[in-house]
Amino acid sequence: MTPELEKAPLLPAHAKQVFKGVIFEVHQWEQELFDGSFKTFEKLRRNDSSVVIPVLSNGKLLIAEDEQPGRPLVYTFPGGEGETGEDPETTARRELLEETGYTADTFTLLRSSVPSSKIAWTIHTFVAKDCRRVADPVLDGGERITTREVTLDELVALADDPRFQNRDLQIPLIKARYDTEVRASLEKLLFG
Amino acid sequence: MTPELEKAPLLPAHAKQVFKGVIFEVHQWEQELFDGSFKTFEKLRRNDSSVVIPVLSNGKLLIAEDEQPGRPLVYTFPGGEGETGEDPETTARRELLEETGYTADTFTLLRSSVPSSKIAWTIHTFVAKDCRRVADPVLDGGERITTREVTLDELVALADDPRFQNRDLQIPLIKARYDTEVRASLEKLLFG
Repeated sequence: MTPELEKAPLLPAHAKQVFKGVIFEVHQWEQELFDGSFKTFEKLRRNDSSVVIPVLSNGKLLIAEDEQPGRPLVYTFPGGEGETGEDPETTARRELLEETGYTADTFTLLRSSVPSSKIAWTIHTFVAKDCRRVADPVLDGGERITTREVTLDELVALADDPRFQNRDLQIPLIKARYDTEVRASLEKLLFG
Repeated sequence: MTPELEKAPLLPAHAKQVFKGVIFEVHQWEQELFDGSFKTFEKLRRNDSSVVIPVLSNGKLLIAEDEQPGRPLVYTFPGGEGETGEDPETTARRELLEETGYTADTFTLLRSSVPSSKIAWTIHTFVAKDCRRVADPVLDGGERITTREVTLDELVALADDPRFQNRDLQIPLIKARYDTEVRASLEKLLFG
């Protein structure tokens, strides 16, 4: 994400919502083109998502094996969509607890990224250190989630597995596979 | 993309279109959950896109510097959205010619990938060898595109630039930066 992209509003102020579904809203606006003519532009919006990298006191990370109806199993860090008006850290805490039964004192925002230029949608990724299990997971009928502890090496090996879901973490993880400095700074970030 | 994901239909047969915009359609269906209950699921659909990696006879690749109204400049291989009913290679040939004025005899499909599990949308990436310029670009009022010749080394260096748009090419390019075997097979694929 470029600094310009981060600063630009994700939807123009004069965009109008033309449809609201269960996940996505559709927004449209008349956009002036480079030649002075106008065209209907369209962009989607959905509630922001939060993702948590849960770090355990044994030096491992907690990853979810997540199956949903009609979709094959994926490997993903816990997380999900925010409720309307919910702040990203609250979403992160709620999703970690619901999906895994784990919590932590401190959630640190690692990055906020916008995966698509056509969707006003930000994914906030948090690191939660010293996670501890405090409850059983609470899954709804559309979730089948089991958790697995992985080492950083195992995570790095998983990064380009087609089932690995956290696409915006793939590049740093793959660089860490080859570059000892990237690897050391990732280790410090998670365990330092 | 897993083999299962490739084989699964991108929309269930009983999904119904509930909205059609200028780019996106919204589809919904009643999905049976793991516990036997039902929930409204939602997925988008848009026409497939094609992307072309144009290889020139001087051993360089043609990349586009692409600006659109309301969006900062990105670096991207030429390409765009298919017209309804257009096959992917025709889209690739049309977009390359319109955006750059170049064409080639043979377009070879490199990969077809599905960027999002929530959008029925496939990006087809072609390699076009021995590209030659046959016309001037034909841009509409919403496009400001200039082309630049880059070496494979320059492309590899560009792969994790936030302005580089072809996300599904990032991982092989970054691996090629570190791994001489990956680099050699990429070179063979493009120039062999």
